[in-house]
Amino acid sequence: MTISGRDDAAAGTRIRLGMVGGGDGAFIGAVHRLAARMDDQYQLVAGALASTRERALSSGRTLGLAPDRIYDDFRAMAVAEAARPDGIEAVAIVTPNHLHHPVARAFIEAGIHVICDKPLTASLAEAHELARLVAEKQVLFAVTYNYSGYPMVRHARQMVQAGDIGELRLVHVEYVQGWLATKLEETGQKQAAWRTDPAKAGAGGCIGDIGTHAFQLANFVSGLMPESLCADLTAFVPGRKLDDNTHVMLRFKGGAKGMLWASQVAIGNENRLRLRIYGTKGGIEWAQEDPNYLWLTMLHEPKRLITRGGDGANEAAARVTRVPPGHPEGYLEGFANIYAEVARAIRARRASTAPEPGVTFPGIEDGLAGVAFVEAAVHSSSQGGIWVRFD
Amino acid sequence: MTISGRDDAAAGTRIRLGMVGGGDGAFIGAVHRLAARMDDQYQLVAGALASTRERALSSGRTLGLAPDRIYDDFRAMAVAEAARPDGIEAVAIVTPNHLHHPVARAFIEAGIHVICDKPLTASLAEAHELARLVAEKQVLFAVTYNYSGYPMVRHARQMVQAGDIGELRLVHVEYVQGWLATKLEETGQKQAAWRTDPAKAGAGGCIGDIGTHAFQLANFVSGLMPESLCADLTAFVPGRKLDDNTHVMLRFKGGAKGMLWASQVAIGNENRLRLRIYGTKGGIEWAQEDPNYLWLTMLHEPKRLITRGGDGANEAAARVTRVPPGHPEGYLEGFANIYAEVARAIRARRASTAPEPGVTFPGIEDGLAGVAFVEAAVHSSSQGGIWVRFD
Amino acid sequence: MTISGRDDAAAGTRIRLGMVGGGDGAFIGAVHRLAARMDDQYQLVAGALASTRERALSSGRTLGLAPDRIYDDFRAMAVAEAARPDGIEAVAIVTPNHLHHPVARAFIEAGIHVICDKPLTASLAEAHELARLVAEKQVLFAVTYNYSGYPMVRHARQMVQAGDIGELRLVHVEYVQGWLATKLEETGQKQAAWRTDPAKAGAGGCIGDIGTHAFQLANFVSGLMPESLCADLTAFVPGRKLDDNTHVMLRFKGGAKGMLWASQVAIGNENRLRLRIYGTKGGIEWAQEDPNYLWLTMLHEPKRLITRGGDGANEAAARVTRVPPGHPEGYLEGFANIYAEVARAIRARRASTAPEPGVTFPGIEDGLAGVAFVEAAVHSSSQGGIWVRFD
Amino acid sequence: MTISGRDDAAAGTRIRLGMVGGGDGAFIGAVHRLAARMDDQYQLVAGALASTRERALSSGRTLGLAPDRIYDDFRAMAVAEAARPDGIEAVAIVTPNHLHHPVARAFIEAGIHVICDKPLTASLAEAHELARLVAEKQVLFAVTYNYSGYPMVRHARQMVQAGDIGELRLVHVEYVQGWLATKLEETGQKQAAWRTDPAKAGAGGCIGDIGTHAFQLANFVSGLMPESLCADLTAFVPGRKLDDNTHVMLRFKGGAKGMLWASQVAIGNENRLRLRIYGTKGGIEWAQEDPNYLWLTMLHEPKRLITRGGDGANEAAARVTRVPPGHPEGYLEGFANIYAEVARAIRARRASTAPEPGVTFPGIEDGLAGVAFVEAAVHSSSQGGIWVRFD
Repeated sequence: MTISGRDDAAAGTRIRLGMVGGGDGAFIGAVHRLAARMDDQYQLVAGALASTRERALSSGRTLGLAPDRIYDDFRAMAVAEAARPDGIEAVAIVTPNHLHHPVARAFIEAGIHVICDKPLTASLAEAHELARLVAEKQVLFAVTYNYSGYPMVRHARQMVQAGDIGELRLVHVEYVQGWLATKLEETGQKQAAWRTDPAKAGAGGCIGDIGTHAFQLANFVSGLMPESLCADLTAFVPGRKLDDNTHVMLRFKGGAKGMLWASQVAIGNENRLRLRIYGTKGGIEWAQEDPNYLWLTMLHEPKRLITRGGDGANEAAARVTRVPPGHPEGYLEGFANIYAEVARAIRARRASTAPEPGVTFPGIEDGLAGVAFVEAAVHSSSQGGIWVRFD
Repeated sequence: MTISGRDDAAAGTRIRLGMVGGGDGAFIGAVHRLAARMDDQYQLVAGALASTRERALSSGRTLGLAPDRIYDDFRAMAVAEAARPDGIEAVAIVTPNHLHHPVARAFIEAGIHVICDKPLTASLAEAHELARLVAEKQVLFAVTYNYSGYPMVRHARQMVQAGDIGELRLVHVEYVQGWLATKLEETGQKQAAWRTDPAKAGAGGCIGDIGTHAFQLANFVSGLMPESLCADLTAFVPGRKLDDNTHVMLRFKGGAKGMLWASQVAIGNENRLRLRIYGTKGGIEWAQEDPNYLWLTMLHEPKRLITRGGDGANEAAARVTRVPPGHPEGYLEGFANIYAEVARAIRARRASTAPEPGVTFPGIEDGLAGVAFVEAAVHSSSQGGIWVRFD
Repeated sequence: MTISGRDDAAAGTRIRLGMVGGGDGAFIGAVHRLAARMDDQYQLVAGALASTRERALSSGRTLGLAPDRIYDDFRAMAVAEAARPDGIEAVAIVTPNHLHHPVARAFIEAGIHVICDKPLTASLAEAHELARLVAEKQVLFAVTYNYSGYPMVRHARQMVQAGDIGELRLVHVEYVQGWLATKLEETGQKQAAWRTDPAKAGAGGCIGDIGTHAFQLANFVSGLMPESLCADLTAFVPGRKLDDNTHVMLRFKGGAKGMLWASQVAIGNENRLRLRIYGTKGGIEWAQEDPNYLWLTMLHEPKRLITRGGDGANEAAARVTRVPPGHPEGYLEGFANIYAEVARAIRARRASTAPEPGVTFPGIEDGLAGVAFVEAAVHSSSQGGIWVRFD
Repeated sequence: MTISGRDDAAAGTRIRLGMVGGGDGAFIGAVHRLAARMDDQYQLVAGALASTRERALSSGRTLGLAPDRIYDDFRAMAVAEAARPDGIEAVAIVTPNHLHHPVARAFIEAGIHVICDKPLTASLAEAHELARLVAEKQVLFAVTYNYSGYPMVRHARQMVQAGDIGELRLVHVEYVQGWLATKLEETGQKQAAWRTDPAKAGAGGCIGDIGTHAFQLANFVSGLMPESLCADLTAFVPGRKLDDNTHVMLRFKGGAKGMLWASQVAIGNENRLRLRIYGTKGGIEWAQEDPNYLWLTMLHEPKRLITRGGDGANEAAARVTRVPPGHPEGYLEGFANIYAEVARAIRARRASTAPEPGVTFPGIEDGLAGVAFVEAAVHSSSQGGIWVRFD
C-alpha cells in the first residue's frame, strides 16, 4: 500500500483553480479547498469569494490570492480569467443553491471547466439549460456528490456493474439527520437558515439538501433510474416552509423497487446515509458513518466484510484509496492535526509569543519514553519475562 | 460547525518545510506531506528525499522543489538551509528508524525545528542525546505519534486530566495486526523487510513498530508512566529475528495496572489499536478503527457514545475537529477523490488525450437527475402522494 | 438480579394447557411448548396435535399426554375438555394460518382461554367474528406477537407512553429476510410451501408472515394506528403467487408518518426486524438481532445505550427480565445446552450404551483445571508476579 | 430449522433430578432449574434447597416437591434417594463454592450423577479428591461452565480441532465486569458478599468467579493447556480481601502464548467475555455479549461472519442450536414472556381478581389490526399503490 504518486504534481503543472463563494466563515468552500489541496493537484489562484467587495477582498487575502485575481463579481471573473494566459482552468462553485445556475453559466460560456456543489440548480429548467450549454461548450462539469468518492462505494458499483449480485430487485437508501428537529433557522444559524428558505434552497428542503445525495448514491451504485415514484414530503417543525422529512417509494426501470427516506428531524441521527442493494445472487450494504467497510452476502454464503484496501477490495476501490486497511480515512486527519499543532507552536516562536493554550503534540520526551519502553520490554523478555523497573 | 479558519494562511506566511526521506515510492513521507498540506499551513521548499543523488533529484523534481534546494545529503541540507534567509523553519524526518538520530541531530544543531517519525531512535542512548540537544538548542521537536491527533483521543485525555473518571485503576491497550503472519519480508515487500531487520529497526520489531504507538497512546490519555513492567516477546514466524508479538503487564506509578498487547501475526486484524481506561468513577474506551466515537460510562449510569463534533464533545476535541458529527473524517478524502478524478480528466484535456480508464465523477447528468428527482417528488407529494412518472 | 419467583408454581397450581397443531416436526409448536415450560407456569395435558389420527397419537405420546387426552379433532377436544373437571384452562393454537379461525372459535365457544399464533386469521371478516365472540364469551385471548415480549421493547413502549420522547413524528419499521430469494417452495421445504400458498397463508405472503409483526411492533411501542397507507407489494421470484416484498408508506392518526418495509428476498438478512421512533424530544432505536440493547437519544444529548437489566432500564423492562445485564438472553440456552448434553449421557448410561457421538460437556477434569489455574495464579501473584509452572 | 425432537421426552422417561442449594431468592439455582426444564428432559423430584429446615421446606413446597423428598440435610438426601427405586438419577449442586466439595462427595459416593456449578472446589486438594472418587464410582460429573454450551463456541472448537486455522499461536481471553467497582459487599448485596469472602469463595476472588470461566473457555476452544503462567492479582477496592482484577500472561504447551484478563472493577463492562484465537492459517473471535456470531478470518481472505444456524455453521454448532438464524437465542425468552403474562392473567381470572398492574400481552384487537393491515395493504397495492384509509 502506498500513497505515493498522489502528490506527484510538480509546481508548474498543478491545475489553476478559481472559486466562487466560500468566503470567510463558509463551511463547504473550505471543504472544497482542502479537498483540492489534498493530492496537490490544484493551485487556487483566483476567486470571487463573497458578494460584497469588502468580504471578497478580505477572504481573498486570507487565502493568499494575488490582488488582481480577487473579484467581487463572478461574471467579471469569468471574463477576465478566460482572457489571461495563466487564467484558471477550472472553477469551484460553492455558493448557495440558487446561484449555482448563473455562476455555472458564466464560466461554461467562458470555456472554463466547472466543479459545482449539489444540487445542480434550484429548478429543472435551469438544469436543462446548463446541460445544453455544457454539451455545446464541451467543458468538463462535475457535481460534487461526494459520496460517490468513497472507495467502498466504488467497489460496490463495480460489483453491481459486473453482475456479481445478479439482477437487481431492491434498492433501499436512507439519509437521516436530526439537526433540524427544532426551529434552528430562527436562532441565526446560517446553515439552517438558507436550507429552509425556498428563495435560496428551491422547492425542496430536506429532499434537495440530502435527498438528492441519497438519490445520486443509489443511482451511482445501482446504475438504475426510477421509472416512477410516489412521495410524501412533510414539514414537521411548525412554521417551516420546506419539507424536513421525505418518504419516497420507487419503481425502477427494469422492475426493481426501492424506498428512499431522508430526514432532518430524526433525533439521534447525525449523518446516517446508508445504502442497501439486493439482487438475485447477493446483497450489499454500505453506511457512510462507517465508510471503510462494505458488507457483502452472496446467496447461501456467510456474510463477508470487505475493507478498504483489504483482501478482496477491487480495482475500482483501489484507485481512490490512499491509506492501508485498518487505517480509517481519518488517519490522515490525525496526522494533519499533529502538523497543525506544530504549526501553531512554530508561529508562536516566530512571533516570540507563548503558543496559544491547548496546543498539544507529542514531543521529544514522548519519543524518549517510547524508546525506553522498548528497551525495558526487550530486557524483561530476554530475562525470561521478569519484572523490571521503568524509570 | 465550520472548518473555516483552518486554511487562513496567506501564501507569504506559510511555514517553510523541508523533508528528509520520503522519496518516490515511500509511504510515510507522502502521508507527512499530505498532512502538512491539509490545513495549508506549510509549504514544502527543500528536501533530501533519497540517499542516492539520482533518486533525490527525481523525487525533488516531482514535488516541484527548486533545483538548488534538492539535496542528496541531509547534513549539507541542514547547513545550507540554516544559512539562507528563506531557509526552512522545520524539517520532517521520515527515514527508516536507524537514521532518525543522525538526521535529527544535524537539524537540531542547525537550529531548525524537527518533526520526526516514531520511534524516536533505535537506542535509548541516542534518544537521551537528542533530548539533551533539544533542550540546549531550544528548537521545537515533535514525534509523530499520530494517534494522539484524533479528536476523541483528545476528548478522553481532557476527561482523565480533569478527574472525570476518578483515580485510575486500569489501563488496557492493544495494537493488533495480522499482516506479518507469514514471512512477508522474504517476498521483497519493503515495509516488511526493514521492520524485521535489527539493523534498521533496532532491538524491537513489533514492539518498536506498533508497541510504541500503543504505549504512547496509553500514556498520552492516562497521563501515567509505568513503574515496572514484565514482558514476553515472541518471534512466531520461524526464522524471524525480531519479535512479531508482544505481551506486557504493567504497573503504573500510583497503583494503576495494565496490559499491553501488540501483535503483527493475529490474522484478521488490520490495525486494531484500542484503548480502555477505568477509574474509580467511570470508564472510557476508544478504538482507532472507529475513531470518531468514544464510549463513556460513568458509575451507575448507562453507557454514552460521545461523537466527534457531537453533543457532549469537549473543547480539546473541538480544537482538532474539521468536519461535522456524522461525517467520519474520511468525508474529506471522499471529496478529495472527486477533485482528483476531475484533475485527471482536466489533465487529459490539457494533453488532448482520452482520460485514463476508470476516471469517474458525477457529472452534469447526475446534477440534472437530482434536480429532476426533487421536482418529481415535490409534484407527487403535492398531489397527495401519487405515483408520478420519472423521465 | 434474581430470576427466583419465576418458577414458583407448585405442581398443583400450574395452568392446564392444551395445544392444537404442533405435531412431530413442527417448528412453532415446539417453540410454544418451550415458552410455556420456561417459567414453569403451565402443564401441557391435552392436544389435537395433528390432523390424522396416527400422527396425532404419535405426537401426543411423544409429549407424554394421557391417552384419553390425545385428540384427532379439535372440535371434539374443545367439547370434551370443557366438560372435564380437570379440563384445560387455555389452548395454544399453532396451526397454519387458515385454521386459526375455526379452531379459535371452537375453544372460545367452549369458554376456554386462547393463545393463538399470528396472524389472527386469513381474512378480516373472520377476525371480526372472533373479536365479537371473545367479547361475548369473556375469555382471555392472546396473539403471540412475540416481539412485544422483549424487555427493551417494553422499556421503549413505557418511555413513549410517558411522553419521554415528546410528540411522535416518525415511526420507521423494517423486517427484512432473505431466505425466500429463490423458489424454495418448490424444493419441498414445508415452511416455504405454506407461506407462499394463498390457500393456507391468505391474501398476504411476506406482509402476512412478517409484515404483520412489524406493524404490531410499531403499534405496540408507538401506540399509534395509521389513518391511511399506500402500499406496493411485489412477488419478485418468478411464479410466486404472493408478495415476497412489501413497501408501505404510513400516515398515522395525529400527524406522525412512517415507512414499513418487509422483505423475504433481501439476501444477507436473516431476521432483521428493526424499529426506529422519533418524537419532538428524542429518538429510540431497537433491533431484534441485538435485542438486549436500546439506543436512546434525547435532544442535544449524547446517545445512550440502555441495556436489559442495566442502569437506566425501567420497570416495564424489569418485569420481563430473567437474567442480569451483559448476559444476553441466550445465556439460559447455553446453560440448557449443558443440561441437555448431560441428559444424553445419562440416557446412554441408563441404556448401557455408548453416548451418541458429539456429546460434549465440561467434566470433572475441567473443574480440576480451573481450580489448579486459580492456585497457580494466586501463587505467581503472591510471589510478586513470577512465572510458575502449570501441571 | 426445527426445534422439534427437543421436547420428545414422554413423561415417564424424564430424568429424575435433585438439587442442593437454590432455595428461595437464589439466582443460580433458578437458572439451573430453568435450563433443566427447557428441553423437557428432566423432572425435579427432590431437593435440599436450603440449610435451615424452615427455608428448605418452604422452598421445596414452592417448587411442588413431594413432602418426603424435601430434605434439610444433603447427606441424608444422598442416602435416602440412593435407596429409593424412584430415587434421583442426578443432582444439581448450586451452593456457594466452599460447599461444592462435601456435597459432591456425598452424592458421588451414593452413585448419583452430579451436575456441579463452577468452580469445582475451593482448593486443589479437594478437586483432586473428587476426581479420584468420580473415577472410582464411575458416575457422570458435569461442571456447568456454561459458556461451553454456546453454538458458536462449539463451532469454533470444531474448527480448531480440525486444524482449520492452523497451528495455534495466540490465545487471548478476557472476562470484564464493573459491578464490584465499589464496595458493594458492604451494602448487604448477597452476591457480592460471598464472592469477596475468602471463607466462602476460596483463595481467588475475581479469578475464581470469572477468571475460571475465561480459562475454561480458552481451553475448551483451543484445546491448549498452559505450561506456565505469570499472574498479577490486585484488590483495587480498599479493604477488599480477594482480588477484583486479574492479569495473567500464559505460555501454552506447544509454543502458543496468551493473555487472560478478568476484572470486576472496569466500569461500563457488564459481562464482557471475549475470546480470540489466532493460528498460522486464520483467526477467530467470539464475544459472549453477541453470542450468535463468530468472526472468522482466513489468511488473505476477507472476514466472514458465521451466524448460529446460518450458512456456514458447522455440525458441532447445529447440535446445540434451537432456533433459526437471525433469531437471537433470546427469541425463546420473548415467547416465554408472552406466555408468562398470559399465565398471570389466567391466574387472576381463576382467583376472580384483577390482574396485577403491568400485565401486557397482544390481544384479539392486535390480531384484528394485523389482519386489517394486510387487507388494506393488499388493497392499496392492487390498485397500483394508492393511499387507502385504515379504520
